[in-house]
Amino acid sequence: MNLDSLQFASRFDGVSGSAIREIFKLIAKPGMISFAGGNPAKTALPDVLCAEIAKEVLQQNGKAILQYGATEGYAPLLESLKTYAEEQLGCELPAVLPVTGSTQAMDLLCKALINPGDVILVENPSFLGNLQCMHLYQARLVPVESDENGIIVEKLEEAIKTHHPKMLYTIPTFQNPTGKTLAADRRQPIAELAAKYGMVVAEDDPYRDLRYSGTPLPSIKSFDKEGWVVFLGSFSKIISPGLRVGFMAGDPRILRKCTVGKQSADVHTSNLTQAIVDQFLRRNLLPEHIKAICASYKEQMDAMMEELNTFPQGTTYTRPEGGLFIWVELPEHINALELLQKCVERKVAYVPGTHFFCDGGHENTLRLNFSNSTVEQIHKGMAVLREVIAEASK
Amino acid sequence: MNLDSLQFASRFDGVSGSAIREIFKLIAKPGMISFAGGNPAKTALPDVLCAEIAKEVLQQNGKAILQYGATEGYAPLLESLKTYAEEQLGCELPAVLPVTGSTQAMDLLCKALINPGDVILVENPSFLGNLQCMHLYQARLVPVESDENGIIVEKLEEAIKTHHPKMLYTIPTFQNPTGKTLAADRRQPIAELAAKYGMVVAEDDPYRDLRYSGTPLPSIKSFDKEGWVVFLGSFSKIISPGLRVGFMAGDPRILRKCTVGKQSADVHTSNLTQAIVDQFLRRNLLPEHIKAICASYKEQMDAMMEELNTFPQGTTYTRPEGGLFIWVELPEHINALELLQKCVERKVAYVPGTHFFCDGGHENTLRLNFSNSTVEQIHKGMAVLREVIAEASK
Repeated sequence: MNLDSLQFASRFDGVSGSAIREIFKLIAKPGMISFAGGNPAKTALPDVLCAEIAKEVLQQNGKAILQYGATEGYAPLLESLKTYAEEQLGCELPAVLPVTGSTQAMDLLCKALINPGDVILVENPSFLGNLQCMHLYQARLVPVESDENGIIVEKLEEAIKTHHPKMLYTIPTFQNPTGKTLAADRRQPIAELAAKYGMVVAEDDPYRDLRYSGTPLPSIKSFDKEGWVVFLGSFSKIISPGLRVGFMAGDPRILRKCTVGKQSADVHTSNLTQAIVDQFLRRNLLPEHIKAICASYKEQMDAMMEELNTFPQGTTYTRPEGGLFIWVELPEHINALELLQKCVERKVAYVPGTHFFCDGGHENTLRLNFSNSTVEQIHKGMAVLREVIAEASK
Repeated sequence: MNLDSLQFASRFDGVSGSAIREIFKLIAKPGMISFAGGNPAKTALPDVLCAEIAKEVLQQNGKAILQYGATEGYAPLLESLKTYAEEQLGCELPAVLPVTGSTQAMDLLCKALINPGDVILVENPSFLGNLQCMHLYQARLVPVESDENGIIVEKLEEAIKTHHPKMLYTIPTFQNPTGKTLAADRRQPIAELAAKYGMVVAEDDPYRDLRYSGTPLPSIKSFDKEGWVVFLGSFSKIISPGLRVGFMAGDPRILRKCTVGKQSADVHTSNLTQAIVDQFLRRNLLPEHIKAICASYKEQMDAMMEELNTFPQGTTYTRPEGGLFIWVELPEHINALELLQKCVERKVAYVPGTHFFCDGGHENTLRLNFSNSTVEQIHKGMAVLREVIAEASK
């Protein structure tokens, strides 16, 4: 029988995973200025330090690192991570679970909670990778309305009453793709609504340390009294995405289920990469490293903002206080998908905004990343983008 | 609302993941002689070499290793892995996909193929971790009959005709938990049945290099003409389980679906651990390393066999040509679950065989691992086991 007769699982119906991958193939061309990914700058990746640390941990504890580890996590990291995360989130954390990038945290949370047809409330637009994750668990994604200060609490309660969601998925700080931040005074009400109605909140917060202005805000998790909020943390933006280490923090009842799910997902996260992250925490290397990254990213964001300020009338954009992304809305008649082709011909790339909406549309939007381009590249690339938009505006 | 009211996803119904974990907690006690895990020997873990390699790859290619990688795999490993796997399996492989341990390969394959209620044929007993994986995808597991030469081809065809399975899951070489090997003359017929009836075969073969006698057998995959066989490979037993690197090899149509599934599972396997495995392949370090491991494991297995030979009458056991496990059947009235408690009191542990059967029962069986104990420990621990069995036989 020919393999073409093979039927794949129905969770893949409507999931192609290809739109963004096609863009990344375009971008791989030499000389391309890419505002498309969410990649850290090359200069932000601590290769010399990691080479030294990797050697040291393998010399000192190599037999344990190379052996099977516990699904619950590498013991030294469990210790340092708890201290770190509690300080970060400003609350006690009864359980933490190291995972293979915070992408796995989302996957395990869906595995633990979602039956096909269950409703997950999502910001609209939201992070593409996790939208795909939720689609693969056959969740029904229902958008909840946001304004410039993030999710509108009244609209959230309405949506909860109407749709009885199992979960809310939110990126509260420097959101992907919009760069928006959930206002401080909306964070406690969201935690309270979760407990009032029995809804899990997945608080996905990988950008919180990348703040270039304003003051840090308390996590939603810090207002969580009953355990309904699960925090998803990442070291991808502040150490390295290539190591694939993130964590979940929350109630032990939920994390235990995720741990059982992880047993048959990958047994455990690589002990070596967990040990490297452990050393960053133990040696307290993060504060200085983050300070250096932020100084550089601020210059890059400012350069992009400066350029956007000169864009044709009718173009609006967010003004984030941190993170990696600026969100742009073009005049309604301009299609950012079509524009992309013209930009790519001139060696500039971005991600069309429509891909981030769980219900499509919004073809006049686009997401710009500034972390992975030098200030010089930003000026050059934005000039191209401005010209292409100006032509399309005629 | 109290979190106790939270309902977990129904895929967890009947999945506790706890039986084996409880055993591993018992084993963690100091002085325990453990025949329970499937862990490589400490001496088989190349810590000095890995320390050197980790440092070198991060010094030479650190920026790329610490950056986001492709879901499809780290480019240098893709190249070296294809050459390695084609030589290993004795056939051309149109696609390979590095994964986070071969456990993830099984998870991605189920994600790609299995709808709730789909039938998967399994050896009975079989590997516990992957049984749990299949349960979490809500597959219906149907045992297929084996004899001392592995799956019986006629029984397999009967089962296919009766149950219309989506997949056959098999560990053809030095099977976990029995140590049995699928005979050479049954391998081509299984590949042919897969193509005849349109059934995917998951050929899970992590032990094939650990051969202490006899001659290597061709993979089922090498007889696959239409692409129905997916090979699951592992570096856990021949380099390190703690690194979490395995691979899948097979038809690009199936692997592409697994790649899309992997995007939202963990984006990609750690570039660092992929780069380390790549160096083992490029520097051709495996042949010598495997030779050293096998020499040592053979002595350990021989010591265990020698002890088993003196066990009370009515105890039978397999005589594997390689791998990590010996399978023991006690007289029917002896319960290996109850025996375990007595053994643990005397600081010896194993895994009761009942856990490996998808339909339970077989309480008089147990699995012994010899790789993770010294010859001295094996003699000492087996003496205890013999005494405990002798007492129970009275």
